[in-house]
Amino acid sequence: MQNEKLHEECGVFGIYDRSGEDEVAAKTYLALYALQHRGQETCGIVVNDEGVMRSHKDRGLVPDVFGHGALERLGKGQIAIGHVLYAAKPVQSRSSAQPLMVRHVKGPMALGTNGALVNAHELREEIERSGGIFHTDTDAEVISYMITRERLSAPSIEVAVERAVPRLRGAFSMVISSPTKLIAVRDPWGFRPLSMGRIGDDQIVFASETCAFDSIGATFVRDLRPGEIVVVDPKGERSIETHCGRRGNVCVFEYVYFARPDSVIEGASVHMARQRAGAFLAKEHPVEADVVIGVPDSGLDAAMGYARESGIPYGVGFIKNRYVGRTFIQPTQMEREALVRIKLNAVAATVKDKRVVMVDDSIVRGTTTAHIVELLRAAGAREVHMRISSPPFMNPCYFGTDIDSRDKLIACRLSLPEIARETGVDSIGFLSVPDVERIAEGAHCGFCTGCFTGKYPIEVPAEMPANKFDCPIPESVKNKKK
Amino acid sequence: MQNEKLHEECGVFGIYDRSGEDEVAAKTYLALYALQHRGQETCGIVVNDEGVMRSHKDRGLVPDVFGHGALERLGKGQIAIGHVLYAAKPVQSRSSAQPLMVRHVKGPMALGTNGALVNAHELREEIERSGGIFHTDTDAEVISYMITRERLSAPSIEVAVERAVPRLRGAFSMVISSPTKLIAVRDPWGFRPLSMGRIGDDQIVFASETCAFDSIGATFVRDLRPGEIVVVDPKGERSIETHCGRRGNVCVFEYVYFARPDSVIEGASVHMARQRAGAFLAKEHPVEADVVIGVPDSGLDAAMGYARESGIPYGVGFIKNRYVGRTFIQPTQMEREALVRIKLNAVAATVKDKRVVMVDDSIVRGTTTAHIVELLRAAGAREVHMRISSPPFMNPCYFGTDIDSRDKLIACRLSLPEIARETGVDSIGFLSVPDVERIAEGAHCGFCTGCFTGKYPIEVPAEMPANKFDCPIPESVKNKKK
Amino acid sequence: MQNEKLHEECGVFGIYDRSGEDEVAAKTYLALYALQHRGQETCGIVVNDEGVMRSHKDRGLVPDVFGHGALERLGKGQIAIGHVLYAAKPVQSRSSAQPLMVRHVKGPMALGTNGALVNAHELREEIERSGGIFHTDTDAEVISYMITRERLSAPSIEVAVERAVPRLRGAFSMVISSPTKLIAVRDPWGFRPLSMGRIGDDQIVFASETCAFDSIGATFVRDLRPGEIVVVDPKGERSIETHCGRRGNVCVFEYVYFARPDSVIEGASVHMARQRAGAFLAKEHPVEADVVIGVPDSGLDAAMGYARESGIPYGVGFIKNRYVGRTFIQPTQMEREALVRIKLNAVAATVKDKRVVMVDDSIVRGTTTAHIVELLRAAGAREVHMRISSPPFMNPCYFGTDIDSRDKLIACRLSLPEIARETGVDSIGFLSVPDVERIAEGAHCGFCTGCFTGKYPIEVPAEMPANKFDCPIPESVKNKKK
Amino acid sequence: MQNEKLHEECGVFGIYDRSGEDEVAAKTYLALYALQHRGQETCGIVVNDEGVMRSHKDRGLVPDVFGHGALERLGKGQIAIGHVLYAAKPVQSRSSAQPLMVRHVKGPMALGTNGALVNAHELREEIERSGGIFHTDTDAEVISYMITRERLSAPSIEVAVERAVPRLRGAFSMVISSPTKLIAVRDPWGFRPLSMGRIGDDQIVFASETCAFDSIGATFVRDLRPGEIVVVDPKGERSIETHCGRRGNVCVFEYVYFARPDSVIEGASVHMARQRAGAFLAKEHPVEADVVIGVPDSGLDAAMGYARESGIPYGVGFIKNRYVGRTFIQPTQMEREALVRIKLNAVAATVKDKRVVMVDDSIVRGTTTAHIVELLRAAGAREVHMRISSPPFMNPCYFGTDIDSRDKLIACRLSLPEIARETGVDSIGFLSVPDVERIAEGAHCGFCTGCFTGKYPIEVPAEMPANKFDCPIPESVKNKKK
Repeated sequence: MQNEKLHEECGVFGIYDRSGEDEVAAKTYLALYALQHRGQETCGIVVNDEGVMRSHKDRGLVPDVFGHGALERLGKGQIAIGHVLYAAKPVQSRSSAQPLMVRHVKGPMALGTNGALVNAHELREEIERSGGIFHTDTDAEVISYMITRERLSAPSIEVAVERAVPRLRGAFSMVISSPTKLIAVRDPWGFRPLSMGRIGDDQIVFASETCAFDSIGATFVRDLRPGEIVVVDPKGERSIETHCGRRGNVCVFEYVYFARPDSVIEGASVHMARQRAGAFLAKEHPVEADVVIGVPDSGLDAAMGYARESGIPYGVGFIKNRYVGRTFIQPTQMEREALVRIKLNAVAATVKDKRVVMVDDSIVRGTTTAHIVELLRAAGAREVHMRISSPPFMNPCYFGTDIDSRDKLIACRLSLPEIARETGVDSIGFLSVPDVERIAEGAHCGFCTGCFTGKYPIEVPAEMPANKFDCPIPESVKNKKK
Repeated sequence: MQNEKLHEECGVFGIYDRSGEDEVAAKTYLALYALQHRGQETCGIVVNDEGVMRSHKDRGLVPDVFGHGALERLGKGQIAIGHVLYAAKPVQSRSSAQPLMVRHVKGPMALGTNGALVNAHELREEIERSGGIFHTDTDAEVISYMITRERLSAPSIEVAVERAVPRLRGAFSMVISSPTKLIAVRDPWGFRPLSMGRIGDDQIVFASETCAFDSIGATFVRDLRPGEIVVVDPKGERSIETHCGRRGNVCVFEYVYFARPDSVIEGASVHMARQRAGAFLAKEHPVEADVVIGVPDSGLDAAMGYARESGIPYGVGFIKNRYVGRTFIQPTQMEREALVRIKLNAVAATVKDKRVVMVDDSIVRGTTTAHIVELLRAAGAREVHMRISSPPFMNPCYFGTDIDSRDKLIACRLSLPEIARETGVDSIGFLSVPDVERIAEGAHCGFCTGCFTGKYPIEVPAEMPANKFDCPIPESVKNKKK
Repeated sequence: MQNEKLHEECGVFGIYDRSGEDEVAAKTYLALYALQHRGQETCGIVVNDEGVMRSHKDRGLVPDVFGHGALERLGKGQIAIGHVLYAAKPVQSRSSAQPLMVRHVKGPMALGTNGALVNAHELREEIERSGGIFHTDTDAEVISYMITRERLSAPSIEVAVERAVPRLRGAFSMVISSPTKLIAVRDPWGFRPLSMGRIGDDQIVFASETCAFDSIGATFVRDLRPGEIVVVDPKGERSIETHCGRRGNVCVFEYVYFARPDSVIEGASVHMARQRAGAFLAKEHPVEADVVIGVPDSGLDAAMGYARESGIPYGVGFIKNRYVGRTFIQPTQMEREALVRIKLNAVAATVKDKRVVMVDDSIVRGTTTAHIVELLRAAGAREVHMRISSPPFMNPCYFGTDIDSRDKLIACRLSLPEIARETGVDSIGFLSVPDVERIAEGAHCGFCTGCFTGKYPIEVPAEMPANKFDCPIPESVKNKKK
Repeated sequence: MQNEKLHEECGVFGIYDRSGEDEVAAKTYLALYALQHRGQETCGIVVNDEGVMRSHKDRGLVPDVFGHGALERLGKGQIAIGHVLYAAKPVQSRSSAQPLMVRHVKGPMALGTNGALVNAHELREEIERSGGIFHTDTDAEVISYMITRERLSAPSIEVAVERAVPRLRGAFSMVISSPTKLIAVRDPWGFRPLSMGRIGDDQIVFASETCAFDSIGATFVRDLRPGEIVVVDPKGERSIETHCGRRGNVCVFEYVYFARPDSVIEGASVHMARQRAGAFLAKEHPVEADVVIGVPDSGLDAAMGYARESGIPYGVGFIKNRYVGRTFIQPTQMEREALVRIKLNAVAATVKDKRVVMVDDSIVRGTTTAHIVELLRAAGAREVHMRISSPPFMNPCYFGTDIDSRDKLIACRLSLPEIARETGVDSIGFLSVPDVERIAEGAHCGFCTGCFTGKYPIEVPAEMPANKFDCPIPESVKNKKK
């Protein structure tokens, strides 16, 4: 259930097509479609045709925003970048949608980023004190300033980026278009994924996830290294590695829930990582049962892994109503529980009179879980054993994930037996931190597990608000703080 | 892929609430949500509050049609009936949406039906010759006339229905509201499902599928018998069995594809029937392979059945993009193949270098299948063995299913080896007719398999157009015929 | 101000184009645009292409309903008919929009009518008792039945119409399309206007008002005679005059307010009739004043007439905000008076320190009038003398005009001095009945002034509800009556 | 006809309510409604509640943008400013809508401006060279930078504004909200109007036109002096007159066409100015005729003036279809001429067999005029004498009016006799420049007549593009220039 899940904020995509045919907008559109799960609040595309940039962005899903001829109006070009954004709070101003397009003395620049800076506040103040003005509350605007100010003295846009990066602390996987160049940048800590691909000889692409490559027929080339800057221009692509050196710390939740199962991050299949999580879970928390089921969609892979490891048969425990979308309108006279019942239905043929292992990937507040468990009981399940394929959330994320405040997190509020009682299950088991760090088999990186452990790869300012993230906070809230 | 599938036309729902509280509209809304897979073209609800009927219906999905206060405006009542409709051709006139509401000398009547009559044309002519006029081209209007004309002399609405039924030949599962009664009717041949349920002591409900009961917390009571008329009024419910006697002939495709897996029809679980279909398929068409995968969503159950029976591991072969809906806009400059690639993506981790059994429930034209197979090849599958959990379509349906014309059906055009070649698979196998008749284990009915065999439970007029169905054919077409 | 006005229900249009080019839909669209003032609730067009009829109708204004390709989808044809409808109460069901299209044994028929029958209720009961069913609560459906039932035995559609007309009592100006003929009918009492025009040699048109002819470049031929039936088919046009004979009784309010000033009805210019009304008013109710102003838009013509006759200068007293349309949203925190202020503003340069004669065409409830007078006072008017270019409404209309119930009509509630006091004017004067009957100089007809006098050209059933009109009354209301 | 008219770009409004009740948003909404004629492309409102600013702006008309709860969501506050914008070319990016809201070191600032700077390009370059970045192509963003940069050293926002004004050359009437102050500024040349009003003791308002005051019940206090800065805060209002001194040069076209007739600018009634223009025209270009008519809506006042001065009777020559709005859809198969015919219709009763003086306020390209003249001829007018209540346009405007390029202006292309021939009139006469400067009787200002004479009150850079204006030029165009 969406409203019981953590949310990742953004997905980015960029394409450079030497041949300059009219497909860069269409390919960006298809890629954003494939990245839609990373952000459903706003989306946007900027097309760069020989230095002339056309932009379209708005609130809404990719097909809604780019219908009605919007895609066609973007026209042809050599470069396009795209962005999907999730916002924790409703976006007040459409101007916060990305890519952000700014003009400065050396021409226009468009930029889309995924992640969150921990020093955005300091940088913003520094810029304002030297005459800058801000239209939005986004990290994207802060980063744009840092780059364009360097650009005043730098010999090229890539040198400006290179000089700006050391000032930025936090998570940022980003794509930038200058009038003639496409630049991709991954922060030196490697929090968020960013991959490079290729279509034929003429086209280089970058995307937050490799599933975007499949959707446009691109082949995966490699992941960007933490700190790497890749520049693509008519002369080809080249890498600036000044800021490389650290080992990556990919957010482990990318494997557990955020990324699409058909994506491969740092060499490890997300689908396989989830099955492994389920298998580890079976070892850590075995139970005698008749059937293993997953909570659709994201709990299914781990459930299969659990079933395979435990030898207990895998079954289809729930049917998800595929017509329940954003537009679900709850009749005012119905209780909230109906919402769960219309979205999911238990398959009695699978669970009736059975001891059921129900696998889900995470549990945030726990209220929806309780309703789901009721569905199983009503369908005749004799026992329900909940297994969660990640450790309990206990801490804020400073790098782009929106986590509920601590007082709402069930794992902060209650002990394990209390959680079991509150959600109505017969037993409960979470994956351990050491095991969650092993699910991405073969990944050539380390992981950030700060939300489970409270230990982060980068120093977090004590006074920083929890849940600081790169999304437009309503003006009211922000201004109040000042 | 939707556009490669057969389509069922309709779903019906009815509720009688003795207590007359204000939830009949909301419950009908939730039930139609659960029945949405049976029809996405139009939907409608009629609420009957002590003889005053309020109606709302329109083109579009349930949440779209009933948003913006439409549901609230229906108000409270004792009876509500609802309908979802699939239309093979775009509906020209909204007035064809159901429930159909008519007024006659004994007051208003609302009616929603699922199925198709084979003698609609004759009845229509008879009515017109005696002074009737038609606003739509629907069976619902023909049936309304047959009932209201009997009503002129009949002592009650249920007697009028009882007298009208023998005149109707074909498939009709319907719900009717008179000012004071809710009536459910199933045709004497039992082509389409229709079940009765209960909420507490005061509420009786009817629905095309039992999944609608789960969505509103109703408990299943029983299926209507073929030919049965159930009347619910303030005195309780009673059954008129004058036309009962025949053994049912449920459309076997309800089990194979139309119905939701969490529904139970005539005592047999749809989910289990699909798994059994897969298991039979494994016996009929075994193959040496490394993994069994299903084409989402409807091929998954049969794939699991195949895997279990064959002992070959089950795997997740495809990820479906859950944001691709009705609004997908294909960039004009992209080839049609991109449509498949954005909807589905193969999971390389599952199929790379593997011999793959790919299970789907049916194959209509075959073009989409070819694209899906390409996805597997591109992801590295070494062999692809296609298994179809139903026999090949070769004949028209006269009872409410929209089947392509024969010259487009791949099974009519090509031999098995040719189908394999055209779709690019290494081998192909369809379920046999005798086995498809065994999938619904425990069902207390027979089956209609006319679309596979050309033998129908009822005589089909030779001159009848193939694909005659209860959907508004554009006026132009109809009038041309006259 | 719209909400203080009487409303006419409908406008009709029909075109027959022997050449059968693709302009009949477009011309009907333009004609309905010109007739939009006669009805803003629903509109529709039916195009008849060699017996194949295509229809599009919906709630909304003409440009909204026929945008997005709807007009183009109607295609080409030889005949088209169109209709705009005003509904006193919100239309519950779109199926009440006209033209009504029905099918019967002799083929399809489309029909649009303007007016109201006084014996609709009787006819409806008669039809229901002989096996008819009703989908709507419109006179159009009753008339359709009367015609199609005659058609069963009549040798042609026009003979069926001829036989049906004597059964219909009340106001009906209508256009009918059969598969090959366009038929226009005006009721024998001539309540509502209906004119015939011509475009070149090949096209015959009919419209409620001549302004529709101007919008499509047609030339006026003549008004239909009361009771006349005109048939247009490939052989040309011919008239059936069986029911002619009575002198017409045109609703005088067509001249006063309903019709567009650029229309000519029964030979009399509406614009000139309004100026004459103003001139008569000046003679009946002279006053010493400095300036004569009109309430936009419909009071302006009469104000000019008053000014010319009285010799008092004409001035522009109000500016109407041309951006206030249907979509005006009143801030919830503002009082209702703001609505008047945003729609109209007084021109201080015209009225300051002046004795003002303010001319309007009618006064219904009086509340808006009071707010308008306040605007003049606030702008500095020293005296305000209200002159109304029609007599006071005191009686219901049974022929197609929606008049408020008596207890809301200011002229029923209050005496003249009380009206002056309640609306805040210094003096008040209404046009007399004898004078209102003289405003349409040269008109070759009599007038219906029943709403002023209570005397109608046709017997009105005593038990009939006031305000019976040809508009879909909500089902709830109707059914309650039974 | 709209598409044959010049366009003004913007209207501004601001309110300060000491009591801080919840009406500032609603009043701004009503005021923008009254100013809608000054700009229909975008509109926006910013509400300032104790330093917390909430903004809503979008493309579309005021009622469309602020429907659906948008107004309510703005909430209560002490200050609100609003803006309507006309854009010569379709606005690519919604972020160009005003008020522009920026954040800088001293807090947020919102700003809306009407007019155009001649040195925007220079200032923009200066800002970019010192590290600024631009999101839009608007003067508003340039002005925001100029003010916020001064703000870094200035002791208050008003001193920052005072220091910034001398850097700005051109037309700007603007309203600014800081966290605690409402500031109104009029440029030192006084190109565009800006008035101050009052509601009770607690509320001060500013608006581009006084008609906005009437719509909210405010009383006019005075016009701002050219160069004046008025600051309103909790201590009251005060004026900064450092930059005052010049005599105003109000755009004379404000009187001729832009402003609403019920507005009063610099002490002169717009309605009266138009009547005087007509009267002068009658003296300059007399003709023997039977009737004087105006082209609705803006030619009517001048026609009345002409009639009164000449003694020829005034008549209503045209009826405008009040349902033709933005949404008019021209049937593709109809010629463009139909557009004129559906919008306007000639009143034959007025013009038939008459010698007609047709008065309009201006003529741009002349094509629509030709169609209008045809309407009169078709209605039987014997002679048509066109009189234009302003001099011919021959030159670009640099101060906020969008004038067609010279090669399209009929007065640049053709001589007077040629214009008469091309538009089909019997004679033609334009108002002279000396007379147009006298129409605003009693106005305490001079006038800018640059578009007629080519002489501007301020030096215009030779290399400046014609039609430079404060509207978002599509990025493509802008960037191309660089």
